[in-house]
Formats: sequence, C-alpha cells, structure tokens
Amino acid sequence: MKCSKVYTHHLAVEPFQVDYSGHIFPGVLGNHMLGAAGIHAEQRGFGIARLNNEGADGYTWVLSRLTVEMESEWPVSGDDVCISTWINSVQRFFTSRCFDIKNENGDVYGYARSVWAMINLRTRHPEDLMKVGNGSLPEYVDTDRPCPCSLGSRIRIAATMPVNSVVMSFSDLDINRHVNSFKYIDHILDLFTPDFHDSHALSHLDVAFVSEAFYGDRLDFYLDTIDEGLVFNVEARRAETVVCRAHLVFKSR
Amino acid sequence: MKCSKVYTHHLAVEPFQVDYSGHIFPGVLGNHMLGAAGIHAEQRGFGIARLNNEGADGYTWVLSRLTVEMESEWPVSGDDVCISTWINSVQRFFTSRCFDIKNENGDVYGYARSVWAMINLRTRHPEDLMKVGNGSLPEYVDTDRPCPCSLGSRIRIAATMPVNSVVMSFSDLDINRHVNSFKYIDHILDLFTPDFHDSHALSHLDVAFVSEAFYGDRLDFYLDTIDEGLVFNVEARRAETVVCRAHLVFKSR
Repeated sequence: MKCSKVYTHHLAVEPFQVDYSGHIFPGVLGNHMLGAAGIHAEQRGFGIARLNNEGADGYTWVLSRLTVEMESEWPVSGDDVCISTWINSVQRFFTSRCFDIKNENGDVYGYARSVWAMINLRTRHPEDLMKVGNGSLPEYVDTDRPCPCSLGSRIRIAATMPVNSVVMSFSDLDINRHVNSFKYIDHILDLFTPDFHDSHALSHLDVAFVSEAFYGDRLDFYLDTIDEGLVFNVEARRAETVVCRAHLVFKSR
Repeated sequence: MKCSKVYTHHLAVEPFQVDYSGHIFPGVLGNHMLGAAGIHAEQRGFGIARLNNEGADGYTWVLSRLTVEMESEWPVSGDDVCISTWINSVQRFFTSRCFDIKNENGDVYGYARSVWAMINLRTRHPEDLMKVGNGSLPEYVDTDRPCPCSLGSRIRIAATMPVNSVVMSFSDLDINRHVNSFKYIDHILDLFTPDFHDSHALSHLDVAFVSEAFYGDRLDFYLDTIDEGLVFNVEARRAETVVCRAHLVFKSR
C-alpha cells in the first residue's frame, strides 16, 4: 500500500457553477465527486485506464447506487469545498465508496455513499473484485472514517403517466459515451420549478442506476409525491426499460 | 490602479468536464471564462456586486457578443488551462474584453473577444461606462496584449423551419435567474450528433446575444448549412423574438 486510504479533492465554487438559488448545482458537485473517485482509484492502481487493459476483454467501473445526505446547505459561490473519498467495504461483486464534503475549516456540508461494480467490457457482466490491481483493493478499505449516510430501500413508483420526456443529446453524454450519471439527476431536478428550488434545499438523494441510456434515447420521467410536497420518488424509463430510480427529500429554506 | 491589467484563472480539466470526444465541453470552458471575467472585474472595483449597489437603481453587466477562435484542439482531461482576461477597449456604452487560453507552458489553445454593456437594473437600458468604479475602467485598458480574434459580421438566417425546440428548465438558469449564456451554446452544439462532434472540432464560434430567455420559454432553433457541412449559422427564437444568433466553423479531426 503506497497511498493513504483517503484522497481529498479541492473545489473552489465559481459564480457560474451555482443555480437559480445561488447554491452549487448537485450535478456539478456530483461530477467533482466522480472525478475525485477516479483520481483515488487511479493513484491506488485500480483506475479505469488500467482496468481497461486488464483481463482478456478489459474491465470498467460502473456506478450502481448513490446516496447523498446533506447536513447543511449546499455550497455557494466562493466556498472552498474539500471532497474526501475512500473505500468502505469490498465484497465479491460490489464495493462501497464513501465521501465526505466539508469546507476548509472541516465543517460538514454532507456525506455520500456509493456502490460500484466492475464489469467486463465485452460481456457487460460483473467480475470478481479480487482481480482488481492484483487483489490490492481490500488493503485500502477504511471502516473507521465516519460516513453517517445509509443506502435507502427499494424505490417503487405508482405513477402511470410521465410528467416529462427528454431526448438524450450530445450534452448529456460523457467520455464513456453513455448518459452521464449526474445528467439523470439534472433532468430529475428539472421536474421542479426554479421557485420550488429557491424555497427548498435537496437534503437527501438516493439513486439506483439500473441500466444505461445512450444518444437519442427518449427518457420518460414518472413522479410520485410521497409527503406534503417534500418527499418524491422518480423513475426514468426508456420505453419499458427502467434506467434509474430516485428518492428525493427536500427541506424548506 | 491597484491591480495589474490582466487576471489569470487556472483550471485543471477533470474527466467529467469532457464530452463524448474527450475534449472539454465549450460550455464548461466558457463558464470558467465568465468566472474569470467576474473576478477580474471584482478585484478592480467594477464587479457585479458593487455595480448592483451603484446609482439609484443599480447596474449590472450584460454579455452582448462573444467570439472564440481556437488555434489548437480543445483541452482534454488532465490539462492545466490558464485563462487570462483583460479589457481591450472602452467606449461610452460598450467595452471589449479579451481572453487568451493557454496551457501551463504558454502554448495557445485559443483566444476570445467579448463585448459587454452595463445596464440599469430598473430600465434595462445601457448606461454610460464612465460611471463605473468612479471612472476607473479606462485605467485598466490593455491594447498591447495580443488577441488575434475578431468579432464577425451580422449573422443572417434563411431557414424557415426549426430543427429543434427546447423548453428552458431549472438547469438552464444561472444565479442571474435567466438562461445562462453558455447554455445557449450547449443547446446549439446539441443540434449536431456525437459522431459529428467526434470527427469535427469547433474551431470558430461567434455569438450575438440579442435578448434574454427565462424559465419555461420554448426556444426554436433554426439552422443554415453554409459550407460543406463545416460552417453553420444558427438562430434561437422565442416565438418571433430572436434570442441569439451564432456562426460556427468546424474542422475535421
């Protein structure tokens, strides 16, 4: 083990990374979290570039679940944000990666927990995580660093009519040539008005990434209101195929 | 004059700031250019926060024209980008702000030139720029630093049928509560397929921002192909009102 178990990424929030309400877009913060995860993995010998060249077919990481739990408001323009990430557990087919999001004084904005699988690039099926980086993944597990943030239970949607439909375009895609994980979250947050966002902060977000979406796919968004306009479930479908499900909790600002 | 005439902003390009082709999204680079312009202005006494509190009604900056001229490819993930910005000229109602975009060795990616007006927040009409920061704007004019990038001529569109329509949603808005300047450019680049972007680099972009768009506006995009699938004009309209016009030149990759 050559590196520490935790990697910390710094982000100085800029005026054009914030939304109508003045807080960082969750998608902007989220892509910096994915970037931090990528650097953490690369520095420790299990980044995507290396995985792509391992085995007969190559492997890659796939994000399966994500939960974000905000303890305070989202960062605003001018804030210095420290995103720390580490591996919390490794099982045969899944690994859990945690994040804490703090300011430069160590005050907590929030936490996140994510679940990843490593898939074979040809078969698209999960592979044994003990193959990764000559079996080094467990060496980096840190169970001591606190991450008070739990994955939610299965999200079920009752709605039968979509509230919005969006065709995936060039700006929805990332370098992996599918729809970027946080673009789904952008489209889900677009189901709510600017005035709603202005008066409500997203305090809890739980997402299950079920299948990939690609260029030209039309995603239909189904929305259930669970509790007094503060708790919602959303499902995005491509025709009859579920692409992702989300559970959102807002707090009044 | 307390500050130098030029402000330089650093950007380390991350994996999730790049597009399908692996190059930074023009909108991501563009918002960092706007961020650099904002910090340059704020440090020199004519930032938006100060302007909002000047005069009886308050003022703000409005971007009117933008031209980007790329000399090389767009930055890729891992690149260290230095965005420098300075004021090139000041007239009564318009000021020209230049940018150069280089790597850490000083190699040029490209240049940009922008035209800004200062409007009265109540009347929305342009105000005399000599009012700004006690008349200090001309002190910061730098005509020596090269910016080989010229504003284009008037863009005229012949197309009579839109090729796409997009309803402006929460994620299109910025803290100024209207559609973000670079979101228009994202939507214009979405008129082209990922395969087109993969095989063509945007080498020249000229945009005229004619009027503001807001939440819920449906923008219709009209496209003229000018030259062999490499040169295009685009107009975005809200009903019969022109919102912006763009001239785009691509090079084969």
